[in-house]
Amino acid sequence: MELNTQEKSLQLHKEAVGKISINSKVKIETREDLSLAYTPGVAEPCRAIHQEKSKVYTYTSKGNLVAVVSDGSAVLGLGDIGPEAAMPVMEGKAILFKSFANVDAFPICLDTKDVDEIIKTVKYLAPTFGGINLEDIAAPRCFEIEEKLKNILDIPVFHDDQHGTAIVVLAGLINALKVVNKKFEEIKVVINGAGSAGIAIGKLLLNVGVQDILLLNREGIIYEGAPGNNPYQEEMAKKINRQQTKGKLDVAMEGADVFIGVSAPNVVTKEMVQSMEDNGIVFAMTNPIPEIMPDLAKEGGAKVIGTGRSDFPNQINNVLAFPGIFRGALDVRASEIHEEMKVAAAYAIAGIIEEKELRPEYVIPDPFDKRIVERVAKAVAETAIKTGVARKKD
Amino acid sequence: MELNTQEKSLQLHKEAVGKISINSKVKIETREDLSLAYTPGVAEPCRAIHQEKSKVYTYTSKGNLVAVVSDGSAVLGLGDIGPEAAMPVMEGKAILFKSFANVDAFPICLDTKDVDEIIKTVKYLAPTFGGINLEDIAAPRCFEIEEKLKNILDIPVFHDDQHGTAIVVLAGLINALKVVNKKFEEIKVVINGAGSAGIAIGKLLLNVGVQDILLLNREGIIYEGAPGNNPYQEEMAKKINRQQTKGKLDVAMEGADVFIGVSAPNVVTKEMVQSMEDNGIVFAMTNPIPEIMPDLAKEGGAKVIGTGRSDFPNQINNVLAFPGIFRGALDVRASEIHEEMKVAAAYAIAGIIEEKELRPEYVIPDPFDKRIVERVAKAVAETAIKTGVARKKD
Repeated sequence: MELNTQEKSLQLHKEAVGKISINSKVKIETREDLSLAYTPGVAEPCRAIHQEKSKVYTYTSKGNLVAVVSDGSAVLGLGDIGPEAAMPVMEGKAILFKSFANVDAFPICLDTKDVDEIIKTVKYLAPTFGGINLEDIAAPRCFEIEEKLKNILDIPVFHDDQHGTAIVVLAGLINALKVVNKKFEEIKVVINGAGSAGIAIGKLLLNVGVQDILLLNREGIIYEGAPGNNPYQEEMAKKINRQQTKGKLDVAMEGADVFIGVSAPNVVTKEMVQSMEDNGIVFAMTNPIPEIMPDLAKEGGAKVIGTGRSDFPNQINNVLAFPGIFRGALDVRASEIHEEMKVAAAYAIAGIIEEKELRPEYVIPDPFDKRIVERVAKAVAETAIKTGVARKKD
Repeated sequence: MELNTQEKSLQLHKEAVGKISINSKVKIETREDLSLAYTPGVAEPCRAIHQEKSKVYTYTSKGNLVAVVSDGSAVLGLGDIGPEAAMPVMEGKAILFKSFANVDAFPICLDTKDVDEIIKTVKYLAPTFGGINLEDIAAPRCFEIEEKLKNILDIPVFHDDQHGTAIVVLAGLINALKVVNKKFEEIKVVINGAGSAGIAIGKLLLNVGVQDILLLNREGIIYEGAPGNNPYQEEMAKKINRQQTKGKLDVAMEGADVFIGVSAPNVVTKEMVQSMEDNGIVFAMTNPIPEIMPDLAKEGGAKVIGTGRSDFPNQINNVLAFPGIFRGALDVRASEIHEEMKVAAAYAIAGIIEEKELRPEYVIPDPFDKRIVERVAKAVAETAIKTGVARKKD
């Protein structure tokens, strides 16, 4: 009997009993091995680091270690399932870091959802790690946690649900706009879903020059002073919706060039797509059922269509971004991953597909394209150096 | 040019850039691999754990993961060198766990020395781990941290500097007493050093029936109401020093059968050993220079001599205990590591040496004796089952 994906996944997890192992990079077979890797020899690297803290990058694993931190409050489409149930996802993330970019990542599933406690905990953990990847923490708490940790810590803090998604969307959009021959400055973008991903996508698009963006939550278009806004939505509303446009998704979609969905299944109709400008771009990323199925979007006249699924063209998948981004940041010991590094990553991903290869069904590269991590890492590292946030001396 | 241990250790740490790596137990080479280990398949084990929390042991690495937690406040003989400089030791501990007992251990070096903050942090981290090994946290804070964490958490919490040391001392003493033909009930034991190890040794010896124990700190013999006592020393003084004996180490040593040193180099003189009972046992464990050098102790008339060093007979080394103890506790999903499990571990270590092999120079087995971990794990697991703290059902 053929097992389905769910059954196969359960079996895989059960047989392996989890997905990560922690291994020794040095052998411990003799008393001498023991005396070098542990007492008394180990005192020497300890002393060296005590004298000059930055030597922790020379003598320990810190520089290649990333914490994958979650409180289990917004896991995949499953919601607030708690830290234990979040473990399979965080372990999965850890092995993607390893498999794609040789980053040693470790799952940290926290038994608290309190913003201040999460911030303090990550701050206390930081000496062990070269970077922090926040994952599946519910909005709007995730914004405050990321913001404060960035201020406190001298290692990169990156909330992948926000920035990973935003970077891959931007990469796809860079290429899609070439296909339809439009420019960032002239397009109208509708982002449906005003959680962590939606807001981050909006911010990154503003940074590359998009001027007309509407962001929607369940109530409709977000505008300044809307009763349901959280502070982060309010801040975005001020920046993007200067005309104070109000209305539901159908209103927003009229005349849009780009639809980006990080919201809920089947909320976009064929009629909405028909109301878009010609050569519309539809990135419907909700999994497993997107905002609109690709065939229906096509019927509505969309030209470039992407989803979060691997069984349709143009899969918008964070694995295109985060491994290379951390690889690059760690390689140069960057103190942060700032906006310019994110934009550089997006252009590196987009650039994998040469202009002559570009077509509506191929604006996003295959996640297993081996060139991606290397190119993204290089772009991120170079941008870190150029902007003065790289700290590696040797 | 021949490098010395310090130089070799520095070189080893620098070449390997730290000692741990985090690896994937499953392959990620195709889209299908990705869909099973990560989205969408991973949702299934998440759901299963969300429905029944104990399934986290079935589908994740939790059950074999141990956190090696330190605040870097009492590292080796180096003292309070901070969390970064503690990393080489915690990584070293992690690879010993792996090499000796196939336990996946991860260093957590904390940027706080506040008792409550450490307790909270470990509590928040606990969902990821099957056990907590506290390491190199200064006394008396370590006692409170361990005590409270044991109360809060449903996974084993074990402060190796206390209990690992105590267990190996007990193992050595079990065999040494056979060699000199004395019994726990009739011996007088002097423990010099009233920090984490000294107090834990005292407690464990009380548990196996030793009735005459003197514990000393820098001021001398600890007695009830002594001005320098911390609460843990005061508690011990009440239990062990009923006669309210006072005095320095020379007073304590007179007529003692056993000296146990966890204090400072060269504090024991030949004359002090001469004042002991015949067939004295001297475990002088301070590293690298013991309380008394073995040849001098022998001159003083000691019969069985142990140190912390690998270049003398009878090395009292925690690596004899902690790997097997955690292996056993994890194997049966024990909720704690209680006193009876510790005593069982000590007898298992001692039992590696058969009676006919016992001699003054061989009361402690070689740490690389492959039988140790297996025997210790078995003894600990069986004791956990017998005492009802094992939770593994399948």
